[in-house]
Amino acid sequence: MTLDLSLLPDGGLHWLIGDGQHAGIVLSSRIRLARNIAGFAFPVRAREGERLRVMHQVRAVAARLKGLEGAAFVRVDECSPVERQVLHERHLVSRELAGLDRGSVGPTGSAVLVTGDAGVMVNEEDHLRVQVFRSGFDVQGALRQAEALDAELGAALPFAAHTEFGYLTACPTNTGTGLRASVLIHLPGLVLTQEIGKVLQGLQHMGLTYRGLYGEGSDVLGNLFQISNQTTLGRSEEDLTEQLERVVRRVIEREEEARAILARDAGYIIEDKLWRAYGTLRHARNLPADEAMNLLSGLRLAAGLNLVTGLSVYTLNKLLIFSQSAHLSHSAGRVLTEGEANLARARYVRQILANEARLPE
Amino acid sequence: MTLDLSLLPDGGLHWLIGDGQHAGIVLSSRIRLARNIAGFAFPVRAREGERLRVMHQVRAVAARLKGLEGAAFVRVDECSPVERQVLHERHLVSRELAGLDRGSVGPTGSAVLVTGDAGVMVNEEDHLRVQVFRSGFDVQGALRQAEALDAELGAALPFAAHTEFGYLTACPTNTGTGLRASVLIHLPGLVLTQEIGKVLQGLQHMGLTYRGLYGEGSDVLGNLFQISNQTTLGRSEEDLTEQLERVVRRVIEREEEARAILARDAGYIIEDKLWRAYGTLRHARNLPADEAMNLLSGLRLAAGLNLVTGLSVYTLNKLLIFSQSAHLSHSAGRVLTEGEANLARARYVRQILANEARLPE
Repeated sequence: MTLDLSLLPDGGLHWLIGDGQHAGIVLSSRIRLARNIAGFAFPVRAREGERLRVMHQVRAVAARLKGLEGAAFVRVDECSPVERQVLHERHLVSRELAGLDRGSVGPTGSAVLVTGDAGVMVNEEDHLRVQVFRSGFDVQGALRQAEALDAELGAALPFAAHTEFGYLTACPTNTGTGLRASVLIHLPGLVLTQEIGKVLQGLQHMGLTYRGLYGEGSDVLGNLFQISNQTTLGRSEEDLTEQLERVVRRVIEREEEARAILARDAGYIIEDKLWRAYGTLRHARNLPADEAMNLLSGLRLAAGLNLVTGLSVYTLNKLLIFSQSAHLSHSAGRVLTEGEANLARARYVRQILANEARLPE
Repeated sequence: MTLDLSLLPDGGLHWLIGDGQHAGIVLSSRIRLARNIAGFAFPVRAREGERLRVMHQVRAVAARLKGLEGAAFVRVDECSPVERQVLHERHLVSRELAGLDRGSVGPTGSAVLVTGDAGVMVNEEDHLRVQVFRSGFDVQGALRQAEALDAELGAALPFAAHTEFGYLTACPTNTGTGLRASVLIHLPGLVLTQEIGKVLQGLQHMGLTYRGLYGEGSDVLGNLFQISNQTTLGRSEEDLTEQLERVVRRVIEREEEARAILARDAGYIIEDKLWRAYGTLRHARNLPADEAMNLLSGLRLAAGLNLVTGLSVYTLNKLLIFSQSAHLSHSAGRVLTEGEANLARARYVRQILANEARLPE
C-alpha cells in the first residue's frame, strides 16, 4: 500500500491549528479509551485469523458511525516502514501498533481509522483504542467527543465488560474506564528555572504521570511533556479528567510564572539563548533530530515571548511534526539515511522560517 | 585629552580597504623599523626629562617630512585608558607603548604619529618605531614606503648606528636592520584540516616566527596569525623581506589547497559550520570577544567561499577591528563593563550583517 497522506482528513492533525485555550503552552489534549470486543481473545493472545476478523468487524461498523464520518481506514499492516513511522510521528498510532521494532512487516490486522481529530487504533494492545485530539487545553471537550464516539461504537459492538470492574482490558492498569487523559505541554520556563523536578514530583503525588513526546519510555525532548492520569480502576471519567485539568491548570500557571521570572531576572541571557536557537534553525545546513527538537523548543518560547513574530502556533506545531525523519522521507519520496534526513530537515526548517518569521532589529 | 579618532587620517586604518593582493587571506603586510637617536639613553633607561625631549624632537622633525604629511600627532601619555586601548586595537601602538598594563596613566612621553598607512611610535622600546601597513600581500610595497620615510627621518635625526652591526636597538634581536616584516594572515583551512601545526613548524625552520593578532605573547584567535622574520642581524632588508614573501606565498597556496580539499571532502560539514557561525553572529544578543573573533573567522571563510555574499573584505576587516571592546566603549562614549561590551558587540555585528550580508536560499 502506498499511504496517500492527503486522503487523511486534515492529515489526522486537526489539533495543529492551535486555536484551543492556552495553545501556546498546551499543544494538545488527548483522550484515549481502551475497549475490547467480547468473544475474541486480546490481540496479543489472538488465535489464527482472529486479528483480521476483529479488523474487518470494526471496519464494517465504523462506516456507519457519525463520529467517524469521512474517516480514512488505513491498514497499518500493509504500510511500508516509513509510512508506519509517519503515522506514529503524527501520534495516530502507537509505537506498538506501527510495529516499529518489528522491521519491514507490520503486525497482521493492525489498522487505524483517522478523522481530523478522532481515530480508532485496531488491534493495538486492546482491540480498539479510541483516540480524540483537541487543540490546546480542552480535556473536557475531548472527553465529550470520545464518549459520543464510544457510545456509538458500544451500540454496534459487544464490548467486554465486568459489572464490578468496568471495561476489561489487556493490561489491568487500564481496566475500569479504560481511559487515559493526557495533555502535551511545553515547559521550557520550568526547565530553565530548574523548577521542573519539583513540579514533576508533585504530579506523581496527585496520581498523575509524565512521559516524553512519544509516550511510555520515550525521552523528554524539546521540553515537551505528556502529562496523564496513572490509574483508572474505580474512578469515573469525570473524576479522572477533572483532576488532570485541575493539576495542569496549576502547571500552566507555574510555567507562566517561571517565564515572567526569567524575563525579569535573566532577560538578556534568555533572549540571547533564544536568538541563537533561531539563528541556528534559520541557517544550519545539517540538523540532527534531537538538536532540532531542542532548538524548536527555543523557537516556540521565542514566539511566546514575542521576540520572533509571524510564527503562528500552527507553524510551530507543523515544524514539530513535519521535521521528523519519516515525514522527511515521505516527502522526499524515498527512504532517507539519517545523514540525508539531517540535511533535509535543515532545508525544511530554513525555508519555513525564511518565509514566515518576522524579526525586529 | 579626548582622542578624536576622526582626526586620524583614515583612522590609521587605510589597510582595511582590502584592495591588496590576496586580501581575502592576507589582511595586511607590515614593515616596522626600530631606530634610536644618538645621544639619548634608550627609553627604558631614560634619564629625567629625556623621554619628553625625544618626543618633542621627533614631533618637530615630523612636521616637515613628506612621508608624514597630514599625520596626526597623538600624545599617548595624555590619552585615557580606553583611548590607548583603541590605538592598540588598531595596531597603531604596541601594548607597551599604550601602557595597558600600567592602569590609568600612560608612559610619560609616549606618542604616536599616524597617517593612513604609516606611523611612528615614539618612546616605545626604541625611540622610534617606524611602521607601514599595506592592504593584502604587499611586503615590498610596505618596505619601499618605510625606507623612504626612514631616509627622511635619518636625514633629520642622528640615528644611533655601529659601522659593523648596523642600527643600534634596545633589544639585541632588533640590531642590524632594525626591521621586522610581517603579514597578518587568515588560515582557517589549514586549522580545519589540522595541517597548521606542520606549517608553523616549517616557518620556524625558515627563520620565521608567528604570533597571535596582538603580537608577542598574544593568543591565536580567529585563525589569524602574524608571520614575521625572527632575526635581523647580519642580513639585508631585501634578503629578509624576500624570504618572508617566498614562504608566505607558499603558505597562501597551502591554505588555498586546504580550502579546496575541505570543499571537496567535507563540503556540507563545513557549510553547516560556517552557516551556524553566521546565524549566531546575525542573531546573538550577547557576544563575548573571543567567541566573536572565532565566529568572524567563520564569516570570513564563508565570504571567501561565496556562501554569504555582499560582505566585502573591507566590511570583514571593519568588523574585526570595530567589534573590539575599547572601540565599543569609545563609540558608546563611556567605559563599558565586559558584560555591556558583549551586548554592544552583538548589536554592532548584527546591524552590519542585517544591512550588508546577502544570502542565497
